[in-house]
Amino acid sequence: MYRTHNCGELRMDHVGQKVTLSGWVQIARNLGGLTFIDLRDRYGITQLAFNMDENSELCTQARKCGREFVIQATGVVKERSSKNANRPTGDVEIQVHELKLLNESIVPPFTIEDESDGGEELRLRYRYLDIRRNPVKDKLMFRHQVALETRKYLSQLGFLEIETPYLIKSTPEGARDFIVPSRMNSGQFYALPQSPQTFKQILMVAGMDKYFQIVRCFRDEDLRADRQPEFTQVDCEMSFVEVEDILQTFEGLVKSVYKSCLDIDLPELPRMNYDEAMESYGSDKPDLRFDLKFVELSKMKGNGFQLIDSADAIYGFVVKGKESSFSNKDINDLTEWVKRPQIGAKGLIYIKYGSEGIKSSIGKFYSDEQLTALSKSISAEKGDIVFILLGEKEKTLKQLGDLRLEVARRMDLIKTGDVKALWVLNFPLLEWNEEANRFFAMHHPFTSPLPEDLDKMNSTDRNTLASIRAAAYDLVINGSEIGGGSIRIHDRQIQARNFEILGFSKEEAEAQFGFLLGAFEYGAPPHGGIAFGLDRLCTIMQGGTSIRDYIAFPKNNMGRDVMIDAPSAIDEKQLKELNIKIG
Amino acid sequence: MYRTHNCGELRMDHVGQKVTLSGWVQIARNLGGLTFIDLRDRYGITQLAFNMDENSELCTQARKCGREFVIQATGVVKERSSKNANRPTGDVEIQVHELKLLNESIVPPFTIEDESDGGEELRLRYRYLDIRRNPVKDKLMFRHQVALETRKYLSQLGFLEIETPYLIKSTPEGARDFIVPSRMNSGQFYALPQSPQTFKQILMVAGMDKYFQIVRCFRDEDLRADRQPEFTQVDCEMSFVEVEDILQTFEGLVKSVYKSCLDIDLPELPRMNYDEAMESYGSDKPDLRFDLKFVELSKMKGNGFQLIDSADAIYGFVVKGKESSFSNKDINDLTEWVKRPQIGAKGLIYIKYGSEGIKSSIGKFYSDEQLTALSKSISAEKGDIVFILLGEKEKTLKQLGDLRLEVARRMDLIKTGDVKALWVLNFPLLEWNEEANRFFAMHHPFTSPLPEDLDKMNSTDRNTLASIRAAAYDLVINGSEIGGGSIRIHDRQIQARNFEILGFSKEEAEAQFGFLLGAFEYGAPPHGGIAFGLDRLCTIMQGGTSIRDYIAFPKNNMGRDVMIDAPSAIDEKQLKELNIKIG
Repeated sequence: MYRTHNCGELRMDHVGQKVTLSGWVQIARNLGGLTFIDLRDRYGITQLAFNMDENSELCTQARKCGREFVIQATGVVKERSSKNANRPTGDVEIQVHELKLLNESIVPPFTIEDESDGGEELRLRYRYLDIRRNPVKDKLMFRHQVALETRKYLSQLGFLEIETPYLIKSTPEGARDFIVPSRMNSGQFYALPQSPQTFKQILMVAGMDKYFQIVRCFRDEDLRADRQPEFTQVDCEMSFVEVEDILQTFEGLVKSVYKSCLDIDLPELPRMNYDEAMESYGSDKPDLRFDLKFVELSKMKGNGFQLIDSADAIYGFVVKGKESSFSNKDINDLTEWVKRPQIGAKGLIYIKYGSEGIKSSIGKFYSDEQLTALSKSISAEKGDIVFILLGEKEKTLKQLGDLRLEVARRMDLIKTGDVKALWVLNFPLLEWNEEANRFFAMHHPFTSPLPEDLDKMNSTDRNTLASIRAAAYDLVINGSEIGGGSIRIHDRQIQARNFEILGFSKEEAEAQFGFLLGAFEYGAPPHGGIAFGLDRLCTIMQGGTSIRDYIAFPKNNMGRDVMIDAPSAIDEKQLKELNIKIG
Repeated sequence: MYRTHNCGELRMDHVGQKVTLSGWVQIARNLGGLTFIDLRDRYGITQLAFNMDENSELCTQARKCGREFVIQATGVVKERSSKNANRPTGDVEIQVHELKLLNESIVPPFTIEDESDGGEELRLRYRYLDIRRNPVKDKLMFRHQVALETRKYLSQLGFLEIETPYLIKSTPEGARDFIVPSRMNSGQFYALPQSPQTFKQILMVAGMDKYFQIVRCFRDEDLRADRQPEFTQVDCEMSFVEVEDILQTFEGLVKSVYKSCLDIDLPELPRMNYDEAMESYGSDKPDLRFDLKFVELSKMKGNGFQLIDSADAIYGFVVKGKESSFSNKDINDLTEWVKRPQIGAKGLIYIKYGSEGIKSSIGKFYSDEQLTALSKSISAEKGDIVFILLGEKEKTLKQLGDLRLEVARRMDLIKTGDVKALWVLNFPLLEWNEEANRFFAMHHPFTSPLPEDLDKMNSTDRNTLASIRAAAYDLVINGSEIGGGSIRIHDRQIQARNFEILGFSKEEAEAQFGFLLGAFEYGAPPHGGIAFGLDRLCTIMQGGTSIRDYIAFPKNNMGRDVMIDAPSAIDEKQLKELNIKIG
């Protein structure tokens, strides 16, 4: 037996007991005749004490224990003379009688402490050392808890976790698939699922009624900072439901997980239409932890300033009480920021409504009175600053949305620990892609239109089609999309029409989704669902910034696992068996 | 809102309530002026009643509903005049006021009933219809429950579920990998994990202490009847443990799952050494639901019968009270059976110890008195029959093990519902492979020898190495291996020596497992674990025969998903992006 207790559980109650602990040497300290070892495991740190006068051999042995050595110590729990109030075990120490070296360690490339001195690449390479650090370990434990509570909640509601296959079929629609050559079916390939979308719909046709799965998904995309080629989804589907049923069920899930994992009571989630989110915040995932709500400013037109008079759209927002926080340099910086190609605005209009008077980048074309009146009309007061962008409407709203987030960051408007969750509803069904010269599904091709917009599906007019709203919803927390879903089409004809609108030929639709269309012939129930990004949910719940921190073994930006050095070359024999060649 | 209740919950308590149900038409019956529809969903079947006299339009509409149509019915719960005691909802019916067709169905290729008339291929192709049948649906629900209870039990003990990557590195040792070409790292490949073995060991080095994961595993093997290219494992690992800790913990898991999912109290699991299992049952996964224990019969030697006198080993077993159940023809059949190449015995010796006297295939060489004495010496009595095989010891034991199972099947010796679980312990560490002319790891290359056999690792003598026992254990239930594991090597030197014994060059070991050997340098704790086959566990728990029944979307023997028609050809463009060619 390696231990009677772990390193996090001994208290004053245990004083006098003989115990055995095993763990890692956090640090050994020699204080003259005394030596102390901080012994660490997943559960905590306990102090081991050695006395040179009482047992010099043992004490000498203890002094040889380097950082990260694995040792086993047996001794008696004693009350400490100088207690450590910062540590749950800080009232006691072990007077060690027996010490056993279980394994040595060479010197780690970075210290196992909360603030590490390793860079990210080094930490990924030695991930097994990184995980020993509290901040990393705690995140993985948190993730376990979130997954557990999710399963508990859904199971209690009668959801069944059903595993869907990972070796499926490649479908060109959507993101790029990872593919897997089949040895037994030469020249053919499986694909790894981007999501179990079609399978969960099949399960509804199969009558399973309520399905969920915490499941890995795969996308072979060029990796941006916060993307991983494999990620985890809480995937759900229900039969005989309308939008309201889904929102109720999964709002319950989110509240329950926040309560059980963070002890936070979320209020009823507000709901916002997609149109309003775009019009008021320039984003379909508005961050409501701060205001900066947009105002429409076409009233500025008619003053003879060509730029404004000819603008398709003019929008702005008021930053309360921050007039004096923006120096000329700050405004110049911000103007350069919005003109970067990633944002793409032509310029930035500001109105500083200072206590000394009004100042604006368009002061040449508008009198102080006009600017004051304009400011007041949008509830700006002395001490506020107004930012305005103009141009083509859709682009301007997005640019202003980006500016809104940047101003909030620069002005530090986000209160730490604040949680603002909401539903965004009624997304457009279709999105026109200029380059491909066709519509793409905004969510995916199985999304149902709102019942009241169903008729428009029969139109061939581009604008009419573009105006179809989907029975789709996103869960947004603190400006991040955490989950999304929709009521699905369950009628074969409507599904076929949707494929047609999306530019699929009948043959293509049949080849890729024939099994789903076929299933719809045999009594498909009305159904809908949602999927949450588990990695992202955990990250946002704890106010983190990178999903990588919540993945035990993440890949780097080149899709490499630098710890195991994958991907890698494989045997010629393997390629031969699969009947494939490189190049 | 599609329903107020599901189709399985209405009882006498609900009589008089207005309810709405949605579901599938199981069957519609027209009885003169009355029409009844059995409405089905996941939860049960409820009878809908329509009366031609009261509402002819509605009744006519009801009569048009074919099998598997999806309908919604609103009406009042009534007590039935003729109740159906076989159905939980059988006391009531719905007097329908409103009927809505939600979706039609064409005629299914087989009926949705407990006894289906579809062959297996047809049922797999229309898996969404197959799952609507109770026997299939119930198995998936059972699997959900087993997984849920497993997670509950392990989480309560402080195990953390940690997800390990699916895109890892190919290792030639063991079974064949599925591989995934990397687009971003041209000419390189990921592999899908055969198990998370190295990652869970890394997690122990990382200090996570107790890990589990219910995880998909992949093996590109030629498929036998009960193998699937992807299958699910309950994967576990613990630090600072010895064999006894692991057995206690996971015996608890198995007992807890049997209790919660089947209400069966398993007794303390017996333990048997590998050597004894082979010697007494000719199998490392003995089925203890029946006896037929082997007896060693070298005492038969010395009677001048060359075949016996020269045999390396002679073993047999007694079948109690079945002397008269074996006709000459039965014995001839069984003799042919053991001579089949799959079994490979040269012949079968029997002794029928009948009430009328003794009869044997070796009667020419042994007197009746000798045969009677022999029979009595192995506790055979009148009415019993003895079967004996001889030849090279190891082969003979295996052949007799196969014969033992076959006799039990033919004699119907297995009581339905009986559960006999045990631990098989102390497997050999190494297995000599004549063809490859080297040792292979019996479990896997990370398995630790028993502490008392550790010294033998330094030997170069083949017999000494072959005699090393591993700290390995298998959980066997009803003759199936449900789980297996071991204490792992945590010392880099011993691990390196093991790779050496297994014929790895230093470079090969480094290339494939360098990250694990590297991790062992930084304070690897003593650790060990186990993995259970979830598909198989579910199958055995319910006395099933095929793991396919417990997989929602299984593949056929060619590794094909016949429902979605995967694997399939992919776009030339995809191959180009991956820089691979077929052929």
